[in-house]
Amino acid sequence: MRLERIFPVLGWLPDYRREDAGRDLVAAALVTIMLIPQSLAYALLAGLPPEVGLYASILPLALYAVFGSSSSLSVGPVAIVALMTAAVLTPLYDVGSDAYVTGAVILACLSGVFLVLMGVLRLGFLANFLSHPVISGFITASAVVIVASQLRHLLGIQASGNNLYEIVVSLWSNLGGFRATPFAVGLGVLLFLIGARRYLPAMLGKTAPILAVAVTTFLAWWLGLDQQGLALVGEIPSGLPALTMPPLAADQWQPLLVGALLISVVGFVESVSIGQTLAARRRQRIDPNQELVGLGMANLGAGVSAGMPVTGGFSRSVVNFDAGARTPAAGFYAALGIALATVTLTPLIAYLPKATLAATIIVAVAALIDLPALSRTWRYSRSDFGAMLVTILLTLFHNVESGILAGVGLSIGLFLYRTSQPHSAVIGLVPGTEHFRNVRRHKVELCPRVTFLRIDESLYFANARFLEDTVMELVANQAEMTDLVLVCPAVNQVDASAIESLEAINERLKNANVRLHLSDVKGPVMDQLNGTELITRLNGKVFLSAFDAWSELKEPC
Amino acid sequence: MRLERIFPVLGWLPDYRREDAGRDLVAAALVTIMLIPQSLAYALLAGLPPEVGLYASILPLALYAVFGSSSSLSVGPVAIVALMTAAVLTPLYDVGSDAYVTGAVILACLSGVFLVLMGVLRLGFLANFLSHPVISGFITASAVVIVASQLRHLLGIQASGNNLYEIVVSLWSNLGGFRATPFAVGLGVLLFLIGARRYLPAMLGKTAPILAVAVTTFLAWWLGLDQQGLALVGEIPSGLPALTMPPLAADQWQPLLVGALLISVVGFVESVSIGQTLAARRRQRIDPNQELVGLGMANLGAGVSAGMPVTGGFSRSVVNFDAGARTPAAGFYAALGIALATVTLTPLIAYLPKATLAATIIVAVAALIDLPALSRTWRYSRSDFGAMLVTILLTLFHNVESGILAGVGLSIGLFLYRTSQPHSAVIGLVPGTEHFRNVRRHKVELCPRVTFLRIDESLYFANARFLEDTVMELVANQAEMTDLVLVCPAVNQVDASAIESLEAINERLKNANVRLHLSDVKGPVMDQLNGTELITRLNGKVFLSAFDAWSELKEPC
Repeated sequence: MRLERIFPVLGWLPDYRREDAGRDLVAAALVTIMLIPQSLAYALLAGLPPEVGLYASILPLALYAVFGSSSSLSVGPVAIVALMTAAVLTPLYDVGSDAYVTGAVILACLSGVFLVLMGVLRLGFLANFLSHPVISGFITASAVVIVASQLRHLLGIQASGNNLYEIVVSLWSNLGGFRATPFAVGLGVLLFLIGARRYLPAMLGKTAPILAVAVTTFLAWWLGLDQQGLALVGEIPSGLPALTMPPLAADQWQPLLVGALLISVVGFVESVSIGQTLAARRRQRIDPNQELVGLGMANLGAGVSAGMPVTGGFSRSVVNFDAGARTPAAGFYAALGIALATVTLTPLIAYLPKATLAATIIVAVAALIDLPALSRTWRYSRSDFGAMLVTILLTLFHNVESGILAGVGLSIGLFLYRTSQPHSAVIGLVPGTEHFRNVRRHKVELCPRVTFLRIDESLYFANARFLEDTVMELVANQAEMTDLVLVCPAVNQVDASAIESLEAINERLKNANVRLHLSDVKGPVMDQLNGTELITRLNGKVFLSAFDAWSELKEPC
Repeated sequence: MRLERIFPVLGWLPDYRREDAGRDLVAAALVTIMLIPQSLAYALLAGLPPEVGLYASILPLALYAVFGSSSSLSVGPVAIVALMTAAVLTPLYDVGSDAYVTGAVILACLSGVFLVLMGVLRLGFLANFLSHPVISGFITASAVVIVASQLRHLLGIQASGNNLYEIVVSLWSNLGGFRATPFAVGLGVLLFLIGARRYLPAMLGKTAPILAVAVTTFLAWWLGLDQQGLALVGEIPSGLPALTMPPLAADQWQPLLVGALLISVVGFVESVSIGQTLAARRRQRIDPNQELVGLGMANLGAGVSAGMPVTGGFSRSVVNFDAGARTPAAGFYAALGIALATVTLTPLIAYLPKATLAATIIVAVAALIDLPALSRTWRYSRSDFGAMLVTILLTLFHNVESGILAGVGLSIGLFLYRTSQPHSAVIGLVPGTEHFRNVRRHKVELCPRVTFLRIDESLYFANARFLEDTVMELVANQAEMTDLVLVCPAVNQVDASAIESLEAINERLKNANVRLHLSDVKGPVMDQLNGTELITRLNGKVFLSAFDAWSELKEPC
């Protein structure tokens, strides 16, 4: 059992049947067909040689099949992570240089280490701090940046930049180099892919990119289109990648640490939400901490086989699932498929136009742009919208790292701010019942001597002084008050700061000749309060319910 | 009314009566007597010339009287802030150099700007992030460091260091220079002050330091003790400080920004808790945001009059209160008292032994060391204790800035961790009632088809995926489940991430043929949920109470 937790493969391999293999092989064939153009395209997007994308689709898939917990997730290069890889490496190294390619390998290794560590230490919850508006805004903005960055291949010009503004300025100033051939090829592929998405049945539509690749590669070779300004992928090394240790020098690793952490967290969040969605359809579930280990091993695999950072891809995983993949073996077969392609197809890939790959990238990422999410979030919560907007603007106009970091910081800050100014209400008895309600919203019975204050938040350091303020203001404004009852049904926690504040409130009320009572304290909270100075020195009593307090205290009213 | 909010002085000055003036003058006289040795001592502690302490006790007090909201708070140099000033400046400048003294002025200005800005922007809540265990641990550790740093004056040797370890090592290696005279004077004062604290009535005890100062100054002059190795304060400029603009060069300000921020926040937290405690005794309250402005103006005053950072001091404020200070005018009179002393007493101060000041510092700060707080916090909450311990250890053995920053970071992290793994319970009906209780703790009725899950925390991004996990695990483990009711009486917030998670849960349950219901949703939360996709596409219903849900759903059980 324990071994199975480390190697989930042991959970399904002993029962693996011929029937499973059939379904897995069909799914793997479809995934391989999708993965060939995607892996080439996302390597291009990351500023890496195209074979790096293929390498990242062999060993990582095989390792995920052993260590991963999802039977449907298709691991490999994906657009957002490719963009993040480029964003981390471009400021540090020349695009295309050996140092740049080595940087990608190191990023994969570091992400692998972070992910495995987070999995082993059961730190999967850390990914939760990437709130939904932040990740959604980040993906939308990244997709926009990716589309802009690929336009140069369609226009046949040079352009560069780390954010939308820089890319647009660079495109504009190089527009003189516009070439018709790449534009025709790119536009043709773009229209074909959009048409295929819209009019072909789902499964068949997924094969459109490989068709576009095959046809344009053939045309480029046959018509010699590179003579007319069509940039081709060019010759790439044939054969499988050699297994190598990545360099271990600290000065090469250190500048990549933050980038690798963000890549691993973003990749994990994406993967786990795809995995959970697909698992739920079969009433299964995946273990997030096991997922971390699986993805981490996949990235380590990419790191030792000259690859790039990988994670689960949405469209491929859905195809894998819909085609009926039964076990992670499907991923293993897909790895074999890509290995075969790497060995046999590389001579053909030399003639593949970059405009074709750019068009497949644009169609794939345009689907990630979710503008309705902006208005939906705006309507639902202004503060969530604020975090989302800051993420989007920084990602678009500064860089992806600052976008995501600012988004996370702002989400946490806004949450702390909200909980630091909790809702509280003076409540009174609804006549003829045992229920208490907010005096501002309902007609209720009151007793001027006894005030009931309901607190609608856990009490912790950030709102402890807020409570002191609220209570002292009540006491200062109601000269006739002799008893204050804090009604605590929604108080889920009371930390040490809040206890000190409550003790201070108790002391101050004692000095002001007001008794402090508690009511509706939850079991676990009461367990913790018992034995503290607050309870031993409490000026009043602890009541089970506000009504009990009312019954005992209201007398002289 | 609006003008009174900016200048609280307008609230009390028009009604100021002769009787108030009498009480204020008595209190001011006592405070002045305490403030003379304290201001000299805390300047020494901060590594500054003694007159800087006096200067920081004139204009700041006058400005606080105009802008502050507490009638009892005695502003001026205090031990913790003096230590923090030294900790910020020592790594940057040579102690005693002009740059060091200018640094203190800049720190005061920056703190003033931060405090006023926080007050105007109503950001007083930011101070709440200094949780009680962190501030308590920080004060205890700082007091230990202060005591260690003052031992050199008692031993008559040189020593330096930014933390306890460095100070002890430095003391040890310089122990050869031990001189008997400073030791005799210091120990004598120490014993006298401890005895005075213990055996003299409170009010009289507070005058002991000025007595010790007067007697030892006289002895030093009469017996020529400086010839026997007793370090004296030495000549200080006579007269009032000149008003000057602090230097505005950015390269002088920038390295002090973080330090100034910490000084202002710590100073504010200390002041406001003293102010609140004293105000409550008279059933008054102070406005924390107004306090920020008052303290900020005091620090700006210190900055333009060659002073050092200031805040409210505990012992002086209590004396001020107990002596019956009625209005902030008491602070104004004390400022006049110190101004008079600065003009007349400076020739005498030259003969004041440093050992005397060191002994007064040690006695004052030893009272701040709160070891029982450690065991109390340990018993109450392990995570609060963790934050406290880290603060103490870093403050003792690294430096005060890292101690407080790590403590704040850890407090926030631990709070987020706790809320990210919230308590939830499957609940069942207590037979014969309408109440539901945890199945693990109580004998309850259950229906295997309908599961009731109570959630004991607000739902937000950090626990949204935790909820998904919990729900999907329940569904995966209970094959017969057809209905899931989320019972939400303790859910005070549902943010945009949680809504997305709930929508995802709803979709997944739909695919798994399980209906999702909600019950006991609070009014404000329901207002927010209405109109979202969750409610419009909800697979089940929203019930007012768990019992309503039970009544409707239990049928085929």
